[in-house]
Amino acid sequence: MIDKTQIRSAFESLQKHICSRLCEIDGNFVFHEDNWKRTEGGGGRTNVGLNGNVIEKGGVAFSAVHGSVTLEMQEQLKMGAGVFFATGVSIVLHPNNVHVPIIHMNVRYFELSNGTYWFGGGIDLTPHYVVPKQAKMFHDALRNVCDKYDTSFYSKFTAWADDYFFIPHRNETRGVGGIFFDQLKESESITKDQILQFCIELGNLFPEVYEEQVLLGKNTEMTSDQLKWRNLRRGRYVEFNLVNDRGTKFGLHSGGRTESILMSLPPLANWEYDFMPQENSQEEFTLKSLVKGASW
Amino acid sequence: MIDKTQIRSAFESLQKHICSRLCEIDGNFVFHEDNWKRTEGGGGRTNVGLNGNVIEKGGVAFSAVHGSVTLEMQEQLKMGAGVFFATGVSIVLHPNNVHVPIIHMNVRYFELSNGTYWFGGGIDLTPHYVVPKQAKMFHDALRNVCDKYDTSFYSKFTAWADDYFFIPHRNETRGVGGIFFDQLKESESITKDQILQFCIELGNLFPEVYEEQVLLGKNTEMTSDQLKWRNLRRGRYVEFNLVNDRGTKFGLHSGGRTESILMSLPPLANWEYDFMPQENSQEEFTLKSLVKGASW
Repeated sequence: MIDKTQIRSAFESLQKHICSRLCEIDGNFVFHEDNWKRTEGGGGRTNVGLNGNVIEKGGVAFSAVHGSVTLEMQEQLKMGAGVFFATGVSIVLHPNNVHVPIIHMNVRYFELSNGTYWFGGGIDLTPHYVVPKQAKMFHDALRNVCDKYDTSFYSKFTAWADDYFFIPHRNETRGVGGIFFDQLKESESITKDQILQFCIELGNLFPEVYEEQVLLGKNTEMTSDQLKWRNLRRGRYVEFNLVNDRGTKFGLHSGGRTESILMSLPPLANWEYDFMPQENSQEEFTLKSLVKGASW
Repeated sequence: MIDKTQIRSAFESLQKHICSRLCEIDGNFVFHEDNWKRTEGGGGRTNVGLNGNVIEKGGVAFSAVHGSVTLEMQEQLKMGAGVFFATGVSIVLHPNNVHVPIIHMNVRYFELSNGTYWFGGGIDLTPHYVVPKQAKMFHDALRNVCDKYDTSFYSKFTAWADDYFFIPHRNETRGVGGIFFDQLKESESITKDQILQFCIELGNLFPEVYEEQVLLGKNTEMTSDQLKWRNLRRGRYVEFNLVNDRGTKFGLHSGGRTESILMSLPPLANWEYDFMPQENSQEEFTLKSLVKGASW
């Protein structure tokens, strides 16, 4: 059975692969590597870049940390004292063009000294303008990978994403969803090795599904009204990440590395008091589409 | 003894007075009044404006709401069931010029059907560039008003502001502090009428202390690097408001009116991965000044 060293190493390779593919897809993107150590144990490599042809700000972060389970972790994760190991890859890409969606991916592994472990992760798509055909392409690709491992995964994980990526104070989903899973461990239907394989396959899928979205949007021109709309939608992304995202909040409150956690924020965001889209506009269609349980 | 109707009416007048003074100070600012009702009882008037000579985005909100104490309120405010009444005035001003500080003020009154009540409030200053002389002027003015009511107020309330307006994940205070108080009720040294008078006097002081700050900064030119710094500091303001501000979080989670709560966000904010100011720069001086317990 795979151990934590192999998982860490698989995630580290995944980061490299994704960065390299994203540079190919963008055509003019450079990641700057920031290697950091954590005083209490472990460290990471946060790769960030700016102002590509397509990606305005992108971050692909790898980390592998260990140490004593803190009181905050005991409370939040409902566990006892002990020693933990955690490794993962997190990605958020903010494109320049409003017709290319924001995208996020995360895979992670957590292990305790008592032998307990689990995997978690997810991919979700946040189009500035919802295009049903593109949302469907995205979901179809996720469904295909899920079905290879367990035919119950997709429907479970997509409902989970709708619940997780939701902004109650706006009564909006963050985007068109995707999949989200947590506390995934071996069972009668899946081994630990297969779960890792599932995570890696999702990670490998990530740049490919993003490329599809990029190709469909990157050459469409953007008006100044659309640019304004992009920046307001980025404001919503900030709201979700800072107010609602349990991962971000847990990271910030438990003493995680602030810069690596907040690399998810857009380079620029706007807020406008009580902005209302025009009737029958694409903006209005988008807002109406940001609901739980949409089937793409 | 004053009752809730008089307090509501005093706060409503305070909103009018402050808006009128801010328009005079700016010289080219118009507030748009947004009157709203709350389904469960009460409502408010949110006055917001954009693109004055000095104020780029400003909001002065009044509300007076009532209804059943919700489960969320019982938990957060550690109280039993019953009927509540709450009224207050909240202000946040984001100036255009980096040499004029962001400012916030709030006064509020809360009453329960069992007769319990309290006042709360605060004023705090968030300069993009800390100028000790200006911070001192601001604190002196607050100290003078506090001392008229209780000589223990200023030292207590300024320490409270340092604790409240703090961003743990950045290890920074939001700005140069000010005063913050909560759960203030009559005692041997102050009557209920006097507490209201204290709140109104702080409210009346607000435009005057802001005018001093505006006059000192508004004519200083702003370089493009300083503009970038302003937008990064606005990003921190967003972080505090969405991650740390207990008032904002309570409002959003308890079903408060989202647009009125989030009028506090800047029109535009930037984030840059791991931005480090140059050594011995004004930006570095500012970061070093954002600590608890600075005595101005």
